[in-house]
Amino acid sequence: MKDVTAILEHIRFDAAGLVPVIAQQHDTGEVLMMAWMNREAIAKTLETGQMHFWSRSRAALWRKGEESGQTQALVELHIDCDGDTLLAKVSQKGVACHTGRRHCFFNRIINGKVEVTEAQLVPPERLYGD
Amino acid sequence: MKDVTAILEHIRFDAAGLVPVIAQQHDTGEVLMMAWMNREAIAKTLETGQMHFWSRSRAALWRKGEESGQTQALVELHIDCDGDTLLAKVSQKGVACHTGRRHCFFNRIINGKVEVTEAQLVPPERLYGD
Repeated sequence: MKDVTAILEHIRFDAAGLVPVIAQQHDTGEVLMMAWMNREAIAKTLETGQMHFWSRSRAALWRKGEESGQTQALVELHIDCDGDTLLAKVSQKGVACHTGRRHCFFNRIINGKVEVTEAQLVPPERLYGD
Repeated sequence: MKDVTAILEHIRFDAAGLVPVIAQQHDTGEVLMMAWMNREAIAKTLETGQMHFWSRSRAALWRKGEESGQTQALVELHIDCDGDTLLAKVSQKGVACHTGRRHCFFNRIINGKVEVTEAQLVPPERLYGD
């Protein structure tokens, strides 16, 4: 695996060894999703050019799109001023959200209510099978 | 204070009662910073239209720009698909980063090294005094 020691020194991981990562479509600026990386996910992402995350619910490393085919290629990786958040500019294939929407932030607060503002582009069962 | 009970029910706070919030400039799409909100910060933000956060290091509520003058007005507030991340589209006055840069993600990983890719627009001592 790629030696990313020098990069990891710039990152302040939380007590669980994780750092939040914002994935943004590189050309449109659309914020697609937020997920978490551990050291291995960062190394795998830099090695392969494909976004890898740590799933907190499944306690496992995953490659974005490994089941759904909706992969995310890394374009640029940025670290914030105090080292505790990453911003990945990516090229998203298809839809980023497991609900079949382009991005995950489709619930908008309008006049004190939460409204869905984005259409499903793909039925979720087409993404993950039965 | 504004009753935001119906909105808070859509949000999954972590064990510390916090949720991460991505602040994005509403018109350019630039990701400015990531910070944390608790229930009170969300209520204050919706009530005043000015971004409020919870400082984990100071264990205190703060209004963005209260010291520096670099305020952030809320334009739209979004909740992600599983309710554990917020996206705030904002109008940033001046610079979002305490280092005097427009945004916080100015450290970019290039060829295995971390490089600063953004200029300081304001000297930090002008933002916070001596």
